Amino acid sequence: MQQFIPQNTNFKAMVEEKMELNHFMNHLGFKINKIEAGLIEGELNIEPHHRQQIGFLHGGVIATLADLVAGFAAYTLVKNEQTVVTAELKISYFNPGVGDTAFCRGFVLKSGQKLIFSEAEIFVNNNGQDIIVAKSSATFAIVELQKLI
Amino acid sequence: MQQFIPQNTNFKAMVEEKMELNHFMNHLGFKINKIEAGLIEGELNIEPHHRQQIGFLHGGVIATLADLVAGFAAYTLVKNEQTVVTAELKISYFNPGVGDTAFCRGFVLKSGQKLIFSEAEIFVNNNGQDIIVAKSSATFAIVELQKLI
Amino acid sequence: MQQFIPQNTNFKAMVEEKMELNHFMNHLGFKINKIEAGLIEGELNIEPHHRQQIGFLHGGVIATLADLVAGFAAYTLVKNEQTVVTAELKISYFNPGVGDTAFCRGFVLKSGQKLIFSEAEIFVNNNGQDIIVAKSSATFAIVELQKLI
Amino acid sequence: MQQFIPQNTNFKAMVEEKMELNHFMNHLGFKINKIEAGLIEGELNIEPHHRQQIGFLHGGVIATLADLVAGFAAYTLVKNEQTVVTAELKISYFNPGVGDTAFCRGFVLKSGQKLIFSEAEIFVNNNGQDIIVAKSSATFAIVELQKLI
Repeated sequence: MQQFIPQNTNFKAMVEEKMELNHFMNHLGFKINKIEAGLIEGELNIEPHHRQQIGFLHGGVIATLADLVAGFAAYTLVKNEQTVVTAELKISYFNPGVGDTAFCRGFVLKSGQKLIFSEAEIFVNNNGQDIIVAKSSATFAIVELQKLI
Repeated sequence: MQQFIPQNTNFKAMVEEKMELNHFMNHLGFKINKIEAGLIEGELNIEPHHRQQIGFLHGGVIATLADLVAGFAAYTLVKNEQTVVTAELKISYFNPGVGDTAFCRGFVLKSGQKLIFSEAEIFVNNNGQDIIVAKSSATFAIVELQKLI
Repeated sequence: MQQFIPQNTNFKAMVEEKMELNHFMNHLGFKINKIEAGLIEGELNIEPHHRQQIGFLHGGVIATLADLVAGFAAYTLVKNEQTVVTAELKISYFNPGVGDTAFCRGFVLKSGQKLIFSEAEIFVNNNGQDIIVAKSSATFAIVELQKLI
Repeated sequence: MQQFIPQNTNFKAMVEEKMELNHFMNHLGFKINKIEAGLIEGELNIEPHHRQQIGFLHGGVIATLADLVAGFAAYTLVKNEQTVVTAELKISYFNPGVGDTAFCRGFVLKSGQKLIFSEAEIFVNNNGQDIIVAKSSATFAIVELQKLI
C-alpha cells in the first residue's frame, strides 16, 4: 500500500461523522473498522435480505460496499471544506459470495488535485477461509462543499 | 433499441420467477414493470434508507438497479437451462439522485454464445422531470444451470 | 443524440488544430470527417500493421479510435482556454474487427463543470455491411490550459 | 503476485509465437521481456509518433500496451487448443506519460473456466524515475481455437 499524507489531520472524525449520516450504509449494516489516510476497511454480517435468488451475496450489495470503502478512502485525503462524489466505478466479479461475513478494503492509488482514483477488494469468509469475490476500480471527483449544497 | 429473438418463449415467466426469489431486490422495493426480449424496465420508490448523507439516492442503490435491469435484460435471451452471472459492471454517475422515484431501463447490446453485453440507464423524477443520474455498461457470462448449483 | 450548446463558437478550428498535432492519430492514419458540438465521426483505412495475429483489427487500435472520438467530442464543448484529459475509458468488444474500413462515432452524454462523460462506437465495414465491433464509455477531466503546460 | 499453475507447460513458446504474428504490437515496437504463468512484462521505447499533441505518450498507445500485457498474461494460463479474446478493458490514467521508455506489467487476478480477469500497470521512466501513468482492469474470454477460425 502506498503512503499518503492527509491534508486534514481530522480525517478520522470526518469519516465517522459522514458514516453516521449515511442512511443506506447503516441500513445495510456495514461497519467500518479501520480508517487510515487513503485506506478504509470494514465488515458486513451477511443477512438473508442481502442475498440474490441462489443465496449468494447480491452483486448490488457488493458494488455498494466497493463504493463505500473506495469512496471513504478517497475522502480521507481531501481538505476540510471538500468532499468526494463518485464519477464512475467498475466492479469485476471473480467468485460467488458464499458465506456469512464480507470483509472489504478500499485504498487510494492516485490522489490528484481534482480526481482521486481508488480500488476496492471484497472478500467473503466461507468456513474460515477468505475468498475474494470482487475487485473494483473507481474515480472520485473532489468537490468544494459550498458548491454541492 | 435493437430487436432480439428470445431462445426461450417462456422468458417472461422465467424473469418473474427469478424476481420473486431475489431477496435483495425485494428488500429494496424495486418493481419491474416491463419485460421484453432484451429489455427490462422498472421503478423504485425512493425511501429515506435508500439515501446517502446529503439526501441523494445512494450510488450503491443506483448500481444495484443497474445490475438488476441489465442482468434481467440479458437473462431474457438465454435458454431454459441457462442463467447469467455478472462478470463486470461499470457505472458512470452523471447527476445527483434528487427526487422520490427512480426509473430504470436495461437493454442488451450484443448477445453472444458465451457473453451478453447490456447497458442500463437510471433516471430520477424530480418535480415531474426525469433526470438521468447514471449509465452503466456490463458483461454477463452465460452459465449452464447444472454447473452453477 | 442530445443537443449541446458549445461554449466556444470556434470549436471546429480548435479540433482541427489539435488533430494536426496529434502524432499517434496521424501515424495511424485516422481521419475525422464530422465535427459538431458534442459529436465526432471519423474513418480508418485498416492496413496490415493495424491487425493482430489472426488478422482482426487490433483491440489497441480500436481503443485508440474510441479515445480519439470520445475525447474530441468532449473537447468541442470546453472553453477556449481549456482542454480535456482522459480520466478513464472502458471498452467492450462485441465482434471481431473483420474488414477493411473502420467507422467511429464519439458523442457526449453529460457535460459538467469539471467532467465530461462520452461514449464511442466503432464499426467495421465487411463486404458492404457495417458491424459494430466495440463500444466505449469514458470520463474526461476539463483542464485549464495554463495549468497543464 | 498470486501463483498460477499453467495448464500448458509450453506456454512461453505459445506467447512468443503469438507475439511474432501480432502486427500492431510489432509495428509499435513493444518488446515483451518476461513471460511467467499469469505474468507478462515488457518495454517500449517511446518515439515521436507514439505521442499526442502536447508530447505525452498517447492514451491509445497506453491502452494498447495494457491490452497486450493483460491479454498475454491471461494467455499463459489457457490450454494448448485455446486462446483468449478481450471481452472488455477499463483503463484509468493517473499521470501524463512524460519520458522516453514505458514499462508494463500484466498479471492475472482470477483464472476461471470461461473468463480470466487480469490487470495491467504502465509506468514511464522520466529522468531515471518510474512514474505510474495508468492502471487497467480487463476481462478475457477463453475461446476454443477451432471455433475462432
